[in-house]
Amino acid sequence: MTQFKTIERLRDACLSLPAGDEDAAQQAAARQNTLTKPPGSLGRLEQAAIFLARWQGRHLPRLETLHVLVFAGSHGVTARGVSAFPAEVTAQMVANFSAGGAAVNQLARQAGATLTVTPLDIERPTADFTQAPAMTEAEFLAAVQTGYDAVPEQANLVALGEMGIGNTTAAAAVAAALLGGRGADWVGRGTGVDDAGLTRKAEAVDAGLACHGTMLSDPLAALRCVGGREIAAMFGALLAARRKRIPVLLDGFVCGAAAATLASLNGAGLAHALAAHVSAEPGHRKLLAALGMVPLLDLDMRLGEASGACLAINVLRGAVACHNGMATFAEAGVSDG
Amino acid sequence: MTQFKTIERLRDACLSLPAGDEDAAQQAAARQNTLTKPPGSLGRLEQAAIFLARWQGRHLPRLETLHVLVFAGSHGVTARGVSAFPAEVTAQMVANFSAGGAAVNQLARQAGATLTVTPLDIERPTADFTQAPAMTEAEFLAAVQTGYDAVPEQANLVALGEMGIGNTTAAAAVAAALLGGRGADWVGRGTGVDDAGLTRKAEAVDAGLACHGTMLSDPLAALRCVGGREIAAMFGALLAARRKRIPVLLDGFVCGAAAATLASLNGAGLAHALAAHVSAEPGHRKLLAALGMVPLLDLDMRLGEASGACLAINVLRGAVACHNGMATFAEAGVSDG
Repeated sequence: MTQFKTIERLRDACLSLPAGDEDAAQQAAARQNTLTKPPGSLGRLEQAAIFLARWQGRHLPRLETLHVLVFAGSHGVTARGVSAFPAEVTAQMVANFSAGGAAVNQLARQAGATLTVTPLDIERPTADFTQAPAMTEAEFLAAVQTGYDAVPEQANLVALGEMGIGNTTAAAAVAAALLGGRGADWVGRGTGVDDAGLTRKAEAVDAGLACHGTMLSDPLAALRCVGGREIAAMFGALLAARRKRIPVLLDGFVCGAAAATLASLNGAGLAHALAAHVSAEPGHRKLLAALGMVPLLDLDMRLGEASGACLAINVLRGAVACHNGMATFAEAGVSDG
Repeated sequence: MTQFKTIERLRDACLSLPAGDEDAAQQAAARQNTLTKPPGSLGRLEQAAIFLARWQGRHLPRLETLHVLVFAGSHGVTARGVSAFPAEVTAQMVANFSAGGAAVNQLARQAGATLTVTPLDIERPTADFTQAPAMTEAEFLAAVQTGYDAVPEQANLVALGEMGIGNTTAAAAVAAALLGGRGADWVGRGTGVDDAGLTRKAEAVDAGLACHGTMLSDPLAALRCVGGREIAAMFGALLAARRKRIPVLLDGFVCGAAAATLASLNGAGLAHALAAHVSAEPGHRKLLAALGMVPLLDLDMRLGEASGACLAINVLRGAVACHNGMATFAEAGVSDG
């Protein structure tokens, strides 16, 4: 089992990532052109089937063991009045996940996926990042490790998401640290803050950037200093999936901050990931553009919880159903133009 | 059973359409605001649940009996060289649907929907609309009636789609007749024509517009003169669904031409319909904009067959799963901000 005992071991793991299986991808692409449809007419479904073939290493991909991993964390920056909801809602929602009452419970079941919710020390919030690093190195590595270990070895696909009151502020701070800009460029209304709350979010991000200064030029330090445990855990899960060559669906803005961290360390780091959707949180569209990712869905959602990723599972199911199940022109006796 | 023996009886039916159940819609909207999520954070899923409540007349909508209706027709205008595939592919694809080998077979199964394919006199193409009306009044009314009768009384939802070599040219002609513009404004590459084919499509549309002249100012005459049997059948099915208050998912550009006909006759005619997706056929985006419809999906697809509509069924399933299954703030003991 991979153990990240030091930041440098984690960094090394991010720098040496496996490639996909180009033979499987090419076989899948060739198969697409034999199926009874005009070439290319299934658009992103064709690309998705080839993507899954590449990362599963088989030209007929499978979507049987699907895992939705939701990580929850508590944020010291909530003391700055950055959320429309009180900080205790994080623990209340974790209880709601356990009871089966949240959106992601319904959506994971509808998608035929297994949901696992992992709370990360939610009774112990991170430090307020405007004053100090959100996490010590030990805390950060523990959160990354928890996410890394949460990825099942035999998963056909992993969908990543999160819950954490205050975490769109942390994600905005990570995005600003990695990609440039100030708080106002990256914050949005999150769960629904008013104009004053939006200003407080931007100010908190700017204070965090000022507090940590040049430290933030290292992506791992940025994630540790202004991120959060659930963001670190999604980063760890994304890394684990890549090392196990498991394709990943990324959820919204907060998940995107974890993804941007890996992309900043390794330009090819997100080759095994698809953006499931673009959220209504305005920073997410900017973040995806910066990452060069085109989301599968755009449904004006801004809930997190992997809710958008669960919906995108159904798109991938459709892609695989067509890829594996359609007749070829030869089989069906259809003239191929 | 409603019988459209004359154009005027059909027109009357289009002019007197039932409204939705606003009580059910309001109850559904009120329920959305009690569920354990920030208000509005499920975006279009919330709107979709309310839409289904309005048209099913129950505040907790159901998606149990789902019907995908695909209509197939043959087009005389194929003599003008408007398709990358030969005309006989229409019959070959109908056989492929029966054998279960087409994309829609896989996608309807994946969506848990019942697929019914209805060929409309495919051995007898419509007239070449550049020379004569595509259909006589009797042929047109028969096609509309077939579509009307294809909608099951107890469906929770109907998804409409089509197959017919040459029918993006017919759809472009209908769109131009209803919404203005010339052939070049509405044609696209369809199954994949080259530049010369694209020019032939635009010329065929322009010739059709010139041939039928002021006749085309009546939407029903436009659909009859430059449309096709499968487009008329989708129009009939859309009308039947409205009169039975069954919500509808519209597929791509050709389906959109049928929808635009009803909208041209009755400004509220599409209130019971959602645009499932926007296709890569460029006329579709223009058509949806003209109809004021925002598609649920944008996956660069251009296959027809109700393939996009089947994928959107999964989005509606997610919407209903959340709407009916989530806990309220009170039930879950979550602070509501």
